[in-house]
Amino acid sequence: MRVIIYGVGAIGGVVAAALARAGHEVIGIARGAQLAVLQSGPLQLRTPDGDVEAQVPCVADPGKIAFRADDLILLTMKTQDCLDALQCLRLAGVRDQPLFCLQNGVSNEPMALRLFPNVHGVTVMMPAGFTDPGEVLCYGTPKLGLFDIGRFPGGSDDDDARLAALFDSAQMRGFVHQDVMASKRGKLLVNLGNCLEAAVGRGADRGDFPARARAEAEAVFRAAGLAWDDVGMDDPRRKALMRMGDIPGAARSGGSTTQSLLRGTGRVETDYLNGEIAYLGRLHGVQTPVNAFLTWLGAAMADARVAPGHVDAAGLAALFADWCAGRKVALSA
Amino acid sequence: MRVIIYGVGAIGGVVAAALARAGHEVIGIARGAQLAVLQSGPLQLRTPDGDVEAQVPCVADPGKIAFRADDLILLTMKTQDCLDALQCLRLAGVRDQPLFCLQNGVSNEPMALRLFPNVHGVTVMMPAGFTDPGEVLCYGTPKLGLFDIGRFPGGSDDDDARLAALFDSAQMRGFVHQDVMASKRGKLLVNLGNCLEAAVGRGADRGDFPARARAEAEAVFRAAGLAWDDVGMDDPRRKALMRMGDIPGAARSGGSTTQSLLRGTGRVETDYLNGEIAYLGRLHGVQTPVNAFLTWLGAAMADARVAPGHVDAAGLAALFADWCAGRKVALSA
Repeated sequence: MRVIIYGVGAIGGVVAAALARAGHEVIGIARGAQLAVLQSGPLQLRTPDGDVEAQVPCVADPGKIAFRADDLILLTMKTQDCLDALQCLRLAGVRDQPLFCLQNGVSNEPMALRLFPNVHGVTVMMPAGFTDPGEVLCYGTPKLGLFDIGRFPGGSDDDDARLAALFDSAQMRGFVHQDVMASKRGKLLVNLGNCLEAAVGRGADRGDFPARARAEAEAVFRAAGLAWDDVGMDDPRRKALMRMGDIPGAARSGGSTTQSLLRGTGRVETDYLNGEIAYLGRLHGVQTPVNAFLTWLGAAMADARVAPGHVDAAGLAALFADWCAGRKVALSA
Repeated sequence: MRVIIYGVGAIGGVVAAALARAGHEVIGIARGAQLAVLQSGPLQLRTPDGDVEAQVPCVADPGKIAFRADDLILLTMKTQDCLDALQCLRLAGVRDQPLFCLQNGVSNEPMALRLFPNVHGVTVMMPAGFTDPGEVLCYGTPKLGLFDIGRFPGGSDDDDARLAALFDSAQMRGFVHQDVMASKRGKLLVNLGNCLEAAVGRGADRGDFPARARAEAEAVFRAAGLAWDDVGMDDPRRKALMRMGDIPGAARSGGSTTQSLLRGTGRVETDYLNGEIAYLGRLHGVQTPVNAFLTWLGAAMADARVAPGHVDAAGLAALFADWCAGRKVALSA
């Protein structure tokens, strides 16, 4: 049994390093500088418990892998890159192998189910970071991360148990879940702040936007008849298994949207976070002005390639007032 | 009031030419050779009733258009190009204007609703073709095309009536529909054969694949509780308003998937036609081996850039047998 990890960024990198360290056969699919570094040397994993190295063999494309029936495939790219990845997996001959969606949001699972029959959702609770090629960070201790795992659209099967056992063997913890999308919707509530953090900068005042974004989302879920779990900081499993530690010399770089702005990729996953709430609101007749505005803001910031912290709370409020009044909105240069 | 037509291919080209001929202000968003030709001359529309010219001003990107509140925006690109187009419209300042999805399948409307609040579905019944830059063909007579039009996810509003009136004024006919997605699902049933036609070639034997693909789709719709209209060749509106005529010197080039293979674009819309049935089947527990196989086949043919008619009915049956047995399937060179 091999674990194919498609996307060796923060989450994919930490998972790959941890599984490889525990003796499991891992193949990464990476790109750019990360690929170049990992093809010639080990992946550095920095944690509160120390720094370790792991050998993570990487390829540029699924077409370089002779897939086997018992491979487990973990999708760890962001949602905006998921469709291309799925199409590459199909052309590489993947067909019935289990695909595990470790990404944020709830859009990857349906996207995968269109092309493949065996799709699973995974909620990732793992404070990981990736800024320099060849190095990933994880602030979780003693466990590096916690994961809810289940079949999409519901239930669970042996593949979920296999992945949970792999995690359990490698300084992580997996929980098989009968309604994993409820868990992923709980994570989505947490991720509604990602765009806000990227806009005003880590630790800066966000006004009442976080509370309003979340209230809209809960109203939308209720109108749609969709359940959700609390997998935020109050989840008792965190207290028992994974606290946040310090890594000497490393400052946390912020959430995934902040990291996307830092890398200047021109794209963020906001359409699949706040945009999911705006979409469901329109479908079910619930007003979601804050999430609709933030969806626009994420796209505008990414397109303008601004740095995190481009606006302050007052600037954000002014933009939102223009948005609500139907006036033209534009980021300052 | 202007009509912005995003994608000046077969459908977009005929609609643009007909509306322009009727005196309406039309702006096309086109690309490649089509853009170059239309920026320096008229669009030729060939029909059974004769050949006409229309001036259709075109731009390469929505960013070149100063959008107005009363613009109507028609999406006439294929689904695989729709997300990029929506993102360009957002960055160009579009926000509350009605977006009409004239594409095949039922995936464009939800994709648009994630980014925009005012989304409409349109079922296109129009035998159109586009093979040479600057020229489009339409075999419909006396009406060029018939359209069901309604708000997504349901109901109708003044914008639907506005578009229907525009069509009625321009040798076409629009019908406001309170459940337009039921009409679009009926069109999807017809489009399940597009990939088959592309595989074996126009007019060639398709065995029992068309009947099986359709039976799977109807079973899936029933399991999902989704209604559909019959908008196929037996739709009485066709007999009353639009029959197929001949265009001297022009042979029909086949459906949209055949046309994509002819152009060698490397991409087809099969994921959103047969793939929609495979997706819904997996979601609702209905087996759809024929549609799942055809979804793979469309992707494989596009990737290999084969010409239409690459396989015959016997070859298709052999590939399908391998697929069902879980053996490796691959197109012959």
